[in-house]
Amino acid sequence: MQRLNWGLIGGGEGSQIGPAHRLGALADGHFALAAAALDADPARGRDYGARLGIAPGRAYGDWREMLAGERGRDDRPELVTVATPNSTHFEITKAFLEAGFHVLCEKPMTMTVEEGEEIVRIAQAMERICAVNYCYSAYPMVREMRHMVASGTLGRLRLIVASFSHGHHGDAAQADNPRVRWRYDPAMAGISGQFADCGIHALHMASFIAGDEVERLSADFASTIASRALEDDAMVNFRLSNGTVGRLWTSSVAIGRQHGFDIQVFGETGGMRWASEQPGQVMYTPLGGRTQIIEKGEAGLSEDATRLSRVAIAHPEGFPMAVANIYVDLAAAIRGERTGALPLAGDGLRSMAAVHAAVASAGQQGAWVDARPPMFR
Amino acid sequence: MQRLNWGLIGGGEGSQIGPAHRLGALADGHFALAAAALDADPARGRDYGARLGIAPGRAYGDWREMLAGERGRDDRPELVTVATPNSTHFEITKAFLEAGFHVLCEKPMTMTVEEGEEIVRIAQAMERICAVNYCYSAYPMVREMRHMVASGTLGRLRLIVASFSHGHHGDAAQADNPRVRWRYDPAMAGISGQFADCGIHALHMASFIAGDEVERLSADFASTIASRALEDDAMVNFRLSNGTVGRLWTSSVAIGRQHGFDIQVFGETGGMRWASEQPGQVMYTPLGGRTQIIEKGEAGLSEDATRLSRVAIAHPEGFPMAVANIYVDLAAAIRGERTGALPLAGDGLRSMAAVHAAVASAGQQGAWVDARPPMFR
Amino acid sequence: MQRLNWGLIGGGEGSQIGPAHRLGALADGHFALAAAALDADPARGRDYGARLGIAPGRAYGDWREMLAGERGRDDRPELVTVATPNSTHFEITKAFLEAGFHVLCEKPMTMTVEEGEEIVRIAQAMERICAVNYCYSAYPMVREMRHMVASGTLGRLRLIVASFSHGHHGDAAQADNPRVRWRYDPAMAGISGQFADCGIHALHMASFIAGDEVERLSADFASTIASRALEDDAMVNFRLSNGTVGRLWTSSVAIGRQHGFDIQVFGETGGMRWASEQPGQVMYTPLGGRTQIIEKGEAGLSEDATRLSRVAIAHPEGFPMAVANIYVDLAAAIRGERTGALPLAGDGLRSMAAVHAAVASAGQQGAWVDARPPMFR
Amino acid sequence: MQRLNWGLIGGGEGSQIGPAHRLGALADGHFALAAAALDADPARGRDYGARLGIAPGRAYGDWREMLAGERGRDDRPELVTVATPNSTHFEITKAFLEAGFHVLCEKPMTMTVEEGEEIVRIAQAMERICAVNYCYSAYPMVREMRHMVASGTLGRLRLIVASFSHGHHGDAAQADNPRVRWRYDPAMAGISGQFADCGIHALHMASFIAGDEVERLSADFASTIASRALEDDAMVNFRLSNGTVGRLWTSSVAIGRQHGFDIQVFGETGGMRWASEQPGQVMYTPLGGRTQIIEKGEAGLSEDATRLSRVAIAHPEGFPMAVANIYVDLAAAIRGERTGALPLAGDGLRSMAAVHAAVASAGQQGAWVDARPPMFR
Ligand SMILES: NC(=O)c1ccc[n+]([C@@H]2O[C@H](COP(=O)([O-])OP(=O)(O)OC[C@H]3O[C@@H](n4cnc5c(N)ncnc54)[C@H](O)[C@@H]3O)[C@@H](O)[C@H]2O)c1
Ligand SMILES: NC(=O)c1ccc[n+]([C@@H]2O[C@H](COP(=O)([O-])OP(=O)(O)OC[C@H]3O[C@@H](n4cnc5c(N)ncnc54)[C@H](O)[C@@H]3O)[C@@H](O)[C@H]2O)c1
Ligand SMILES: NC(=O)c1ccc[n+]([C@@H]2O[C@H](COP(=O)([O-])OP(=O)(O)OC[C@H]3O[C@@H](n4cnc5c(N)ncnc54)[C@H](O)[C@@H]3O)[C@@H](O)[C@H]2O)c1
Ligand SMILES: NC(=O)c1ccc[n+]([C@@H]2O[C@H](COP(=O)([O-])OP(=O)(O)OC[C@H]3O[C@@H](n4cnc5c(N)ncnc54)[C@H](O)[C@@H]3O)[C@@H](O)[C@H]2O)c1
Repeated sequence: MQRLNWGLIGGGEGSQIGPAHRLGALADGHFALAAAALDADPARGRDYGARLGIAPGRAYGDWREMLAGERGRDDRPELVTVATPNSTHFEITKAFLEAGFHVLCEKPMTMTVEEGEEIVRIAQAMERICAVNYCYSAYPMVREMRHMVASGTLGRLRLIVASFSHGHHGDAAQADNPRVRWRYDPAMAGISGQFADCGIHALHMASFIAGDEVERLSADFASTIASRALEDDAMVNFRLSNGTVGRLWTSSVAIGRQHGFDIQVFGETGGMRWASEQPGQVMYTPLGGRTQIIEKGEAGLSEDATRLSRVAIAHPEGFPMAVANIYVDLAAAIRGERTGALPLAGDGLRSMAAVHAAVASAGQQGAWVDARPPMFR
Repeated sequence: MQRLNWGLIGGGEGSQIGPAHRLGALADGHFALAAAALDADPARGRDYGARLGIAPGRAYGDWREMLAGERGRDDRPELVTVATPNSTHFEITKAFLEAGFHVLCEKPMTMTVEEGEEIVRIAQAMERICAVNYCYSAYPMVREMRHMVASGTLGRLRLIVASFSHGHHGDAAQADNPRVRWRYDPAMAGISGQFADCGIHALHMASFIAGDEVERLSADFASTIASRALEDDAMVNFRLSNGTVGRLWTSSVAIGRQHGFDIQVFGETGGMRWASEQPGQVMYTPLGGRTQIIEKGEAGLSEDATRLSRVAIAHPEGFPMAVANIYVDLAAAIRGERTGALPLAGDGLRSMAAVHAAVASAGQQGAWVDARPPMFR
Repeated sequence: MQRLNWGLIGGGEGSQIGPAHRLGALADGHFALAAAALDADPARGRDYGARLGIAPGRAYGDWREMLAGERGRDDRPELVTVATPNSTHFEITKAFLEAGFHVLCEKPMTMTVEEGEEIVRIAQAMERICAVNYCYSAYPMVREMRHMVASGTLGRLRLIVASFSHGHHGDAAQADNPRVRWRYDPAMAGISGQFADCGIHALHMASFIAGDEVERLSADFASTIASRALEDDAMVNFRLSNGTVGRLWTSSVAIGRQHGFDIQVFGETGGMRWASEQPGQVMYTPLGGRTQIIEKGEAGLSEDATRLSRVAIAHPEGFPMAVANIYVDLAAAIRGERTGALPLAGDGLRSMAAVHAAVASAGQQGAWVDARPPMFR
Repeated sequence: MQRLNWGLIGGGEGSQIGPAHRLGALADGHFALAAAALDADPARGRDYGARLGIAPGRAYGDWREMLAGERGRDDRPELVTVATPNSTHFEITKAFLEAGFHVLCEKPMTMTVEEGEEIVRIAQAMERICAVNYCYSAYPMVREMRHMVASGTLGRLRLIVASFSHGHHGDAAQADNPRVRWRYDPAMAGISGQFADCGIHALHMASFIAGDEVERLSADFASTIASRALEDDAMVNFRLSNGTVGRLWTSSVAIGRQHGFDIQVFGETGGMRWASEQPGQVMYTPLGGRTQIIEKGEAGLSEDATRLSRVAIAHPEGFPMAVANIYVDLAAAIRGERTGALPLAGDGLRSMAAVHAAVASAGQQGAWVDARPPMFR
């Protein structure tokens, strides 16, 4: 197995998500870090790239420089990851796709629905993969849940209840701290705060597990800290295409919840529950039966859940391994092998349409609005 | 301490809530069962009453008979509990209040807002206690949470997130079973199914802990089993008078949740969480600090939480003891002693107003509507 | 159903276990408190008895007085509960049995094996019930576990691992507090501290669930606070008659464990686990299958577990209801009806033999010793 | 940062622990897999090595071949990992240490105490690192517990209670399956089964957290499946040098426990608890205070716990990252930088002495025996 060359944009020293990408891409030996533009500060980016072992000249100060330097090389990256702040995702992703690179873009993929549609079209036209890092969907047990729904274990789905809530922005005294403030400032974060930041992970997962799409929604937004222009708490009711009812709560002022991402899925013949803080287990209850604990690594799980688990039953495999699973599937896709269910540009676009729909609904007292991007209606 | 005479209407043999009332009223020796009309079937009611040790002639076949037989006695009950099906609560409660009895009425107190207002007025006019059995509010640790909010531990409240969801009506094949069907049939259950049955417990608790009232709400109802006219799943967003944001999910098709009543309360300086399946603990997180487990029975709890706990720290005290605590406070109130926060007719009325508001909102695509009873606006 | 007259010795105002006995005996209406000698202080005992509603003259200052006053009455108690300090159990229990009363004695039943054998003989000779308050064995789900073992669900038992550990005596600064000190002082507590206080509950439960008896054991005792003559921490390895391996840890210095009583039972075809802080659930794992949660109140449980549960599935039923179940079974036994598995004098005797065996073993560097009372060898 | 060359022996395709080593060594980019002898079958080993991207000629069929091929190279591995079956650890580790390589050896390091002492002496003489893969000690929160003890948060330690129990060998019908049988066959596994396999992890952790050594112990072994010559269940009581009491249960027939490794540590001023299935949290209770949840990634943790955590608070970091932390510390040690507390040959030797002591004790009815290797007495 030859390693694939990999490029990374953003995710510099001290960044939040950078370590997970580096761990994820390198862990299984599928990728080698060949080129990067790691930091908003060119000198810091080059220096850190050198320390990460990137060959001289390939640790760039800027993504445009990197695009220029890499596009013509024989050993250019097969995959480029975009892990910069949200507002830059669109132009970087677009530029690399157009130059024929496969891209893994952080969420949210774009700031507008139009940009999202453009990315989908470019990826299609260029016949390149544009994946979006909905990494929770790559936990083995989330794949197992998707498999259980697809194979009919739960019957027709009736109801999905998800939450992604934490309390890390609950301190009003910190609201003006620049590391926090930008998230609730429309000038920097766009039209949505907490829902665009965390809610879309949960909304994607609902679709992902259901194997269905969000059709319409109604939202209630709140800025519980007065100085915030954007919501720090949101409740979104939605319906999937086949009528499944959805309920999604997301908050950043839920003091005491740390990484409170969980999802419950209820169908005609059973229910199940998963939580990101104990990601190796699914609680499953067949209709009329007892709740059972499905363990990552147990015998008889689906091919996908089995393939994406690396260590023995009940040995926890954390968040970095979920990101690594995205890279496993990307490597396979790039090599033309069969992959699991990678989140793609279409998913990123749907999220953006849902964000815009939720903002519109919240602005109209919770009116129900179409949540689909025009191109998928 | 002289036992108080007690009368029970409904709660016959095999009923769901009857045992909790009998245990609750008798457990501490405050009440003695003096008279009863236990069953819809007069003969069964008389027979069961006799087996419970009620004196001959005071185990009635019917509540009207009981009212007639008891109202003139010197040793008539000081308190009458109404534990019959919902549609009968109003007339029975009204009749006994008007005859000068104290009443503990099961929830929901009435079927309409008008009836609720009438009960409030009668109780006031007669100077009788009309309590409503929001028994979860009598768990020591729920009282502790209320105390913590009142004493400012959490600062101004921002957000309350509650759920009361189970899966016991999730079997479509059982939907026509009469024990289940009536709950979703407007002819028998009134205008609301699951929200009026379980949701109002959670809504009451939100108000109870916050020490504040629900002002307006927006609802999304679903009948996930097609044959049901009334909702088996509901999401209600609400606002308390002081602006606290509320979110409440209730469901009877959440297969795998057994007694899924839990509540999270978030304020400016902390958050907390309680669940009915582990009622002796509160998870409390001060802003910027670690999550702590507050245990029923630990030193230094509020007077109310301490008073209502009967056995040592970490010995579980279950649902029957919560109901018993309602009776403890009723006995104290009847004796003119200081009590904790008994849920009263005003609370029952507010619930009814909220039910009607939620139905109206759900029928108008989630429009926000006033949730207060006219008499409290 | 006629109430049975009941007498209570000890369990006075402010006592630890008294409230559980009063709740337990009264809750279901099987017993009425007819006579009592509640307190070491005669005046306090009489006064409290009067406040509990005992008829004048039947609230005694002393158990001997009570025995004298009650033995000749027609309406004398059918059952007398002994809830005084340990060293008095033997003489009180003996005296009441010999006078023909049924007795429920608190644990430990006696201080010596010889006393224990004497109680067994007297109960037999008098044809009276002498029960011992191993109340945890009366939780519905503990009865269910016993049933599962008896009906072969786990196959032959291989291993039982139990612990009963708390940290409430972990503060060295409190070691001289009289409420704590007596427990580790041989003059008052006898030959064993924590093992005789809590360990025997766990040892009884192991036997109870297994339906088998402890044959031999090896113990390691420690006094982790130097001033203590008796152990505050103990590990006991044991073997049941049929070879099942047992391991039991008990501690009073396990700071952070509150009511840490749990038991795991492993057989050829499955394992299960129960914890006293969540007593309504058993975690059960069939060999080769998934862990399942068995819920109190679910359909299809054994007759005994069903009968002893009072409220609906997943509504917690706490410690007072476990004690009440002991009284339910006592009432049935007194009435000559079929009962579940009441812990009897033989069980109390076996505990005493095990305590003496453990002390002997701990004193001989963990040598294995016979744990059976001579009369049962 | 230059990658260090790394060699791997054992851990071939389909092996249990191989993936964790590859993930762990590669994840952070400290090591590059330069040479390997991966499999008992030379052809399979060479082929798999090639597929892992090892340069032609450096994927060896055999460790002796690898030693011969690598020892003279300039770019020879700086670290060699030994992940072969237990009985081969000694000779491979010895050979590579003597040739001047740093070694990370899987546990148990050797089969006898004498071999263990020899390894310690060789590592010392050669001035090479010989680490042992007690990888659980590299979880950030285990490091935090060690730090808390060292800095006096718990006061003098009184008691440590550990268990490492699972049920994966609980099926008697599988007892003759070769994958299971060898573990209980003295010819292949040596003198101890489950205790040498899992128990020593827990025993090491007790020492590690306490910062103290096991001095003496008493053991009770059981073979609950009759055909087994070696124990599948063991209880070991021990004492640390400073008198701390220890209790350790390990089992492979605990059906329903999956990866049941947990440890409780109790001192004069507090207690704490950690479990391998939720490795990012420590439950900590200060004397007289409430139980608190310490979260990996929270502010204010020790330098070591902070350094070894890669993703944000409450994002789980599983078993592969614990192994990676061993490699992080090895890379630092090789580079002469400051490291955390790496488990070294002395720890491997102590484990071996404890295994031999436990076997001796179990064979003498639990007699207390010295658990220290002669060279450390
Ligand atoms: N998938 C997930 O679970 C997840 C989790 C966290 C963050 N994210 C996403 O990852 C992205 C980055 O978030 P973060 O929290 O790591 O942010 P961060 O602010 O911690 O780090 C951003 C990094 O990008 C670098 N950067 C900024 N502008 C750049 C530019 N023009 N060129 C190159 N580098 C540049 C910064 O120097 C920094 O190193 C965001 O889009 C965020 O939404 C996703
Ligand atoms: N507070 C709570 O937590 C809680 C829990 C369950 C039920 N409830 C409420 O308690 C009430 C009873 O519910 P349930 O589940 O016990 O119902 P159920 O159907 O199990 O029992 C109702 C009982 O009332 C008797 N009854 C019916 N009509 C009567 C009449 N006219 N006169 C005398 N007796 C009559 C029936 O014979 C039966 O014994 C309902 O209002 C319900 O909402 C409250
Ligand atoms: N089964 C259980 O789970 C459990 C739990 C706690 C205690 N206990 C047992 O219950 C017994 C009492 O324990 P406690 O913790 O309640 O003790 P306590 O000290 O709190 O109360 C003892 C009570 O007995 C009274 N008393 C003492 N001597 C008396 C006498 N000679 N005559 C009448 N009354 C007398 C005292 O005044 C006091 O009211 C002990 O044997 C203890 O082991 C059992
Ligand atoms: N630290 C831990 O948590 C942990 C966990 C599991 C296993 N282990 C240890 O790891 C070691 C391996 O265990 P495993 O479960 O992976 O075993 P395994 O049987 O699954 O794999 C052993 C691997 O070593 C290879 N091998 C055997 N003999 C060899 C030789 N002479 N030269 C080269 N390769 C050889 C085999 O082909 C196989 O690939 C054991 O010592 C075990 O105790 C440690």
